[in-house]
Amino acid sequence: MGKGGQAHVKEENMAAWLVGINTLKIQPFKLPTLGPNDVRIRMKVVGICGSDVHYLKTMRIADFVVKEPMVIGHECAGIIEEVGSEVKNLIPGDRVAIEPGISCARCVPCKHGRYNLCPDMKFFATPPVHGSLANQIVHPADLCFKLPDNVSLEEGAMCEPLSVGVYACCRASVGPETNVLIMGAGPIGLVTMLSARAFGAPRIVIVDVDDHRLSVAKTLGAVEIVKVSTKIEDVNEEVAQIHKAMGSRVDVCFDCAGFNKTMTTALNATHAGGKVCLVGMGHSEMTVPLMPATTTREVDVIGIFRYKNTWPLCLDFLRSGKIDVKPLITHRFGFSQKEVKEAFKTSARGGNAIKVMFNL
Amino acid sequence: MGKGGQAHVKEENMAAWLVGINTLKIQPFKLPTLGPNDVRIRMKVVGICGSDVHYLKTMRIADFVVKEPMVIGHECAGIIEEVGSEVKNLIPGDRVAIEPGISCARCVPCKHGRYNLCPDMKFFATPPVHGSLANQIVHPADLCFKLPDNVSLEEGAMCEPLSVGVYACCRASVGPETNVLIMGAGPIGLVTMLSARAFGAPRIVIVDVDDHRLSVAKTLGAVEIVKVSTKIEDVNEEVAQIHKAMGSRVDVCFDCAGFNKTMTTALNATHAGGKVCLVGMGHSEMTVPLMPATTTREVDVIGIFRYKNTWPLCLDFLRSGKIDVKPLITHRFGFSQKEVKEAFKTSARGGNAIKVMFNL
Amino acid sequence: MGKGGQAHVKEENMAAWLVGINTLKIQPFKLPTLGPNDVRIRMKVVGICGSDVHYLKTMRIADFVVKEPMVIGHECAGIIEEVGSEVKNLIPGDRVAIEPGISCARCVPCKHGRYNLCPDMKFFATPPVHGSLANQIVHPADLCFKLPDNVSLEEGAMCEPLSVGVYACCRASVGPETNVLIMGAGPIGLVTMLSARAFGAPRIVIVDVDDHRLSVAKTLGAVEIVKVSTKIEDVNEEVAQIHKAMGSRVDVCFDCAGFNKTMTTALNATHAGGKVCLVGMGHSEMTVPLMPATTTREVDVIGIFRYKNTWPLCLDFLRSGKIDVKPLITHRFGFSQKEVKEAFKTSARGGNAIKVMFNL
Amino acid sequence: MGKGGQAHVKEENMAAWLVGINTLKIQPFKLPTLGPNDVRIRMKVVGICGSDVHYLKTMRIADFVVKEPMVIGHECAGIIEEVGSEVKNLIPGDRVAIEPGISCARCVPCKHGRYNLCPDMKFFATPPVHGSLANQIVHPADLCFKLPDNVSLEEGAMCEPLSVGVYACCRASVGPETNVLIMGAGPIGLVTMLSARAFGAPRIVIVDVDDHRLSVAKTLGAVEIVKVSTKIEDVNEEVAQIHKAMGSRVDVCFDCAGFNKTMTTALNATHAGGKVCLVGMGHSEMTVPLMPATTTREVDVIGIFRYKNTWPLCLDFLRSGKIDVKPLITHRFGFSQKEVKEAFKTSARGGNAIKVMFNL
Repeated sequence: MGKGGQAHVKEENMAAWLVGINTLKIQPFKLPTLGPNDVRIRMKVVGICGSDVHYLKTMRIADFVVKEPMVIGHECAGIIEEVGSEVKNLIPGDRVAIEPGISCARCVPCKHGRYNLCPDMKFFATPPVHGSLANQIVHPADLCFKLPDNVSLEEGAMCEPLSVGVYACCRASVGPETNVLIMGAGPIGLVTMLSARAFGAPRIVIVDVDDHRLSVAKTLGAVEIVKVSTKIEDVNEEVAQIHKAMGSRVDVCFDCAGFNKTMTTALNATHAGGKVCLVGMGHSEMTVPLMPATTTREVDVIGIFRYKNTWPLCLDFLRSGKIDVKPLITHRFGFSQKEVKEAFKTSARGGNAIKVMFNL
Repeated sequence: MGKGGQAHVKEENMAAWLVGINTLKIQPFKLPTLGPNDVRIRMKVVGICGSDVHYLKTMRIADFVVKEPMVIGHECAGIIEEVGSEVKNLIPGDRVAIEPGISCARCVPCKHGRYNLCPDMKFFATPPVHGSLANQIVHPADLCFKLPDNVSLEEGAMCEPLSVGVYACCRASVGPETNVLIMGAGPIGLVTMLSARAFGAPRIVIVDVDDHRLSVAKTLGAVEIVKVSTKIEDVNEEVAQIHKAMGSRVDVCFDCAGFNKTMTTALNATHAGGKVCLVGMGHSEMTVPLMPATTTREVDVIGIFRYKNTWPLCLDFLRSGKIDVKPLITHRFGFSQKEVKEAFKTSARGGNAIKVMFNL
Repeated sequence: MGKGGQAHVKEENMAAWLVGINTLKIQPFKLPTLGPNDVRIRMKVVGICGSDVHYLKTMRIADFVVKEPMVIGHECAGIIEEVGSEVKNLIPGDRVAIEPGISCARCVPCKHGRYNLCPDMKFFATPPVHGSLANQIVHPADLCFKLPDNVSLEEGAMCEPLSVGVYACCRASVGPETNVLIMGAGPIGLVTMLSARAFGAPRIVIVDVDDHRLSVAKTLGAVEIVKVSTKIEDVNEEVAQIHKAMGSRVDVCFDCAGFNKTMTTALNATHAGGKVCLVGMGHSEMTVPLMPATTTREVDVIGIFRYKNTWPLCLDFLRSGKIDVKPLITHRFGFSQKEVKEAFKTSARGGNAIKVMFNL
Repeated sequence: MGKGGQAHVKEENMAAWLVGINTLKIQPFKLPTLGPNDVRIRMKVVGICGSDVHYLKTMRIADFVVKEPMVIGHECAGIIEEVGSEVKNLIPGDRVAIEPGISCARCVPCKHGRYNLCPDMKFFATPPVHGSLANQIVHPADLCFKLPDNVSLEEGAMCEPLSVGVYACCRASVGPETNVLIMGAGPIGLVTMLSARAFGAPRIVIVDVDDHRLSVAKTLGAVEIVKVSTKIEDVNEEVAQIHKAMGSRVDVCFDCAGFNKTMTTALNATHAGGKVCLVGMGHSEMTVPLMPATTTREVDVIGIFRYKNTWPLCLDFLRSGKIDVKPLITHRFGFSQKEVKEAFKTSARGGNAIKVMFNL
């Protein structure tokens, strides 16, 4: 077992590199030195996220631009192969789910427990930091969370997208007195719905423009669904439908789409003293009735950036069965050049694909 | 002393009635019965608020429409003349500042301590409820707060506008680690500035388009001022100026104007993890970069509706000298038909008028 | 339907009066006038609480002394017979669970949402206020909560003891990341256990000295049980057993007994940054290792006084099946002089009696 | 300038070593390697804390035992001489105040922003970690806070004891509506008093058994003082005196002594819904009326362990003049064997000594 020296890797470590628009190549990936608090992990499952697809299509997200070839992937789980000299909580053979972001631990947000706002965050597959779609990676031990015996590696990899929903519920303080409205039944809307139920939300309504997505939501849990249009002039009528479906006030609304119309609906539907939480990222600039919601009803408008401290809770939800993420995994691929290409195509196409997974 | 019966009033009680657009008339105002928990107050000082002027000009604010003649006024202080049979905390002769809103005490917000969100609130001069610009009024004793010996009745009446700033600071949790940015140096901006300092904000920057208002702000306290334009394209440069004037990050920004530009500046200037609090009510619908602030920096967007539980704190700030509101009182009028007209004209004109007061 | 006048009552209203030590008599009870916001309720179910038994045995609890004959009882549910002129949320025939305490709505705690701390609280069967073990009572409508269709009147009456557990969990912020330890498996310990599970506590350990009580706890839910002694010198070893049973850290401990030993165990077992919440009231003065827990591990020691705002949540837990209180109801009696005597004897005896109920 | 290599130190680095009971020796102290995020500091001011005196007298505090010779001292300020390769916020010549504890940044408390509860904390002069009474030390850059121009090195060293008071006020949420009672006018009581005022506490009462200490408290600020006895039977009468001196309710009480009597007074004097915060560490086990305070008045009992994130706020208080710590510095010594001995003797003697400082 290594003690802080160069990781001992017999076979060549291969990874999926984003080398240009719509171009992914499986190429060797040299592992960094194993530090005293690091572990070397054999990657077993990596999921594809919308942001991965976005980078593949455009080589950028907002101000993050892929200038050099970059290993992609950040939703992952694997098996510990080697641990650094100071690592006490893990041993080789442990199955772990992996939190992708390494914060600096020294800045003001880090010291105040808001490490997701760390300006020096090193996050898998956010340029110039490499991702985790590779045979092996090296990562800090404190970001690797041992899987309970009854949680599979695939479920472990799902902790990453699930963390978005879980953290949204944390930030919005969802509990057994919180009636929850969710705008958008895409993957983010679905994990938020599953999380809200696990946090004890007594009533959940989920809204979308797409019948198939709503039917998937319906099969995933005891929620009311409301189909809406894309027309802004329907907002008032749709708010009335939402209130009827809820049968009670809306305490927290998660906007998992992020458009003018979803946000307008969110602001108008939420009860005095409630919260609207932006989760999905549609429009950067929004035209919305912010004033009446915030200043006559004191609805708070909050948002989330990634997540923090969610892995232990996600794993506990999976262990206890309060959340079942298996129905979200719709497609599986191997780790060959051809399959990687096919997998990303499947994920980008959407349709009945919710979560696409690599089994390495 | 009355014991829950009809208030004993020898002279005819006169009040300023809003009877039509731009038409105020001093007319008799029959006092309601004095309940066991009520007091009868001889009104001594009543200030004019922007909302009073707005009702006078248009007979409405948002959904509140003046359909029947209504007594105007809600910033007030007076002297107790009679107390109901159950009143224990006040006696005739006590000088009191008066909180204008009577909440129902039975609904969910009331029982949770958010009585300002009570749907059955009866608020001075919000139709159909009469206001307090009258010789005498009857009001619940628990909404009348005894003035400390060193606080004048005029200062007592100022507790109402001051409460807006104080409550804004409460909701935004301003304290000795909170650098505060204030958009707008009108009356609301000024009371917010005074409150922020009293809450311990170490650095305050106030922004306006008007040199005179900025110079008033400057004279009121140790704050930095930044003059800005009304052009949206100047936002980035002005944010840089604001950051330079602050010499540190912006933790909380109070938008005391409520326009697209002020809110855009607020959202862009506020640091990750900070708060933007809407205080002023300009645009109902806003076009603003809500997404980046809330979802990549977790800036919370909150607002205030009136205030709650602020009178004791306001009086304590006035007593201790942590806040001096006297410089805000720029004009004084008597309570005659002619002076009432003149006073409202003065308040509506703005210019060097900050707070216009009636001395009854 | 009455409109604020004298309640219309044809038959004579009978109630159980505490007239002396160990002496309860069923005697006529004149109803008070029905106020505009009151309702008249035909009582259907009333439970016996430990405090009722205590008053019966000693005519006092702490500083509350029964000086005049007093109607007993405060855990109750019934059917609306008449509503006051201003009541909008209830109509005759509605089945309701009843919150027993009437707060003043005017004091500082009431206005801040902590109405359970109201110094002028009028609480059923707390001298000199009459209780609710009567054919009919008059009560404020806002303290009567309509039962969902699938919740029985008996379950409705259980909202009162359940509220203790629910409020304890609210105050201690129990959620899906909170491992909960409960000291004491009596009625209060059991409702706290049921509440903690409904709030999402992933792991619950309950501790008692009595095998029968522990076995009841075991049958009520998926909890670990630890049997302990009454000897203080066993604390360290028992803390180790508790930690082993939990299989994780203790985040919140509810001391539902309130003795030196239970509190010592609570303080020592709770993890750094956790909370110990006093629920049961054993010793007034305690000798406990307060310093190490609070100053080297920042364990907060909090307590609860009755409850606030819990009825809607209790009814929602009962409606959704997240809590089942029916197994707690072990004995039922009618409302005759003889049965009242017998019922109190049964409750006082303890043994296999958890909750003793009157069906009127 | 070093770049992560061995710190470059020409002269021999001397430090004050605790080598046995009542035995301090000035001996060479080999500096550790300068890491990339570390700085090397020339120590200029080091204060003596009660804990230093305690270690000197007994070689232990609670479970911390001095088994090997250990450099003492942890209240300090100095000048940067060398910075590691990754350090961006400091340059040689910067004057800095130094936070003494290095947390692991990887554990649950660290990631949740409660790093003072880190189980792997390395804290100056807490065995086996060396302290800072030395010519030079090496320390992480993020624990060194640049002094504002108008703050002296002596004031910088005072940030450590001041942090106790500041953090106590943070934990107890002291603000402009918090009337504060302080039990004990020793050094900790005094810094808590200064902090409470800086946090905006409108009324402060401080209590002690010693006239001299009370008179010092009086000279330090506008506070009321109450002299008490050491007899437990005087508590009720003294609580009445305290309430009279406060002229209002007690919202937060800091027990800066930690004895049965001070804690009993604290619990009984604090108003319903208030907080008692343990700051001083007297008795480990306490006999106190915990039940009535927590369960009938919902007084929360909390405590503090050291501090977290306090240096920036302390420096801001010193910069703005909201706190003046200079009157607390009563004695100054040089860094010779003889003076070190004398300084500790002075500090241990108490009397008129509040804070004893070394100027190196």
